[in-house]
Amino acid sequence: MTTCVFCQIVSGRLPSHRVLEDDHTVAFLDIAPASEGHTLVVPREHARDIWEISEATHGHVARMVHRVAALLNTALAPDGVNIVHSTGEAASQEVFHFHAHVVPRRHGDSLHPMWNSRPAPGQDLEQVLARVTAVR
Amino acid sequence: MTTCVFCQIVSGRLPSHRVLEDDHTVAFLDIAPASEGHTLVVPREHARDIWEISEATHGHVARMVHRVAALLNTALAPDGVNIVHSTGEAASQEVFHFHAHVVPRRHGDSLHPMWNSRPAPGQDLEQVLARVTAVR
Repeated sequence: MTTCVFCQIVSGRLPSHRVLEDDHTVAFLDIAPASEGHTLVVPREHARDIWEISEATHGHVARMVHRVAALLNTALAPDGVNIVHSTGEAASQEVFHFHAHVVPRRHGDSLHPMWNSRPAPGQDLEQVLARVTAVR
Repeated sequence: MTTCVFCQIVSGRLPSHRVLEDDHTVAFLDIAPASEGHTLVVPREHARDIWEISEATHGHVARMVHRVAALLNTALAPDGVNIVHSTGEAASQEVFHFHAHVVPRRHGDSLHPMWNSRPAPGQDLEQVLARVTAVR
């Protein structure tokens, strides 16, 4: 028996509030929503995170995210939406089964931006680019 | 002449630090990075946001996000990564050409979680689910 909570939701052994589903993915309401309609999209097949998920399965999740965002727009008419994925505890991943958050937003809601934008010196960007392109 | 900054980056009229590109998308370093290696993925074809982008183009972006995340993992060995997309000013979208942020994370870095998790009453979830499934 798997101990993965999202595998148990996918299999139906744990209950969930299903928004949409298809052959590859399940979308259900987050039980600790950041906003009204906050939905999680998970692949049926277990994969820990973005390093482990296949490109094909990631594509299936993306397709469902697109459908869920459109559905929430029709149903709830939010002012915007964030799509958020976290890989690793350092990025605040809490359940280690790949998932994407679809978070409807309202003007003046209490959610925070994840970071504040400050321009970086061009030289710093050049150095990072060199490291990244070296392994391309 | 388009006034869209990302269209100008895609066409090469504005310079950028290109990480990867393919027929459908361009990935380049954010000039105001939240963390080292913070990369944006944009479709070549202009689309304002997730409501406007086609499912196919969104799929192309997702594929490039997957490639960029793997590349940054190899090049920079971060502790984690966030993928973040914003649609609408209410969600802090600043450039109105669809884009996804790929943000490498380190333990103890200064980025904030976008929200704090608090379980919702099951009754609230039932009510939202009813509204969403009504338009499915």
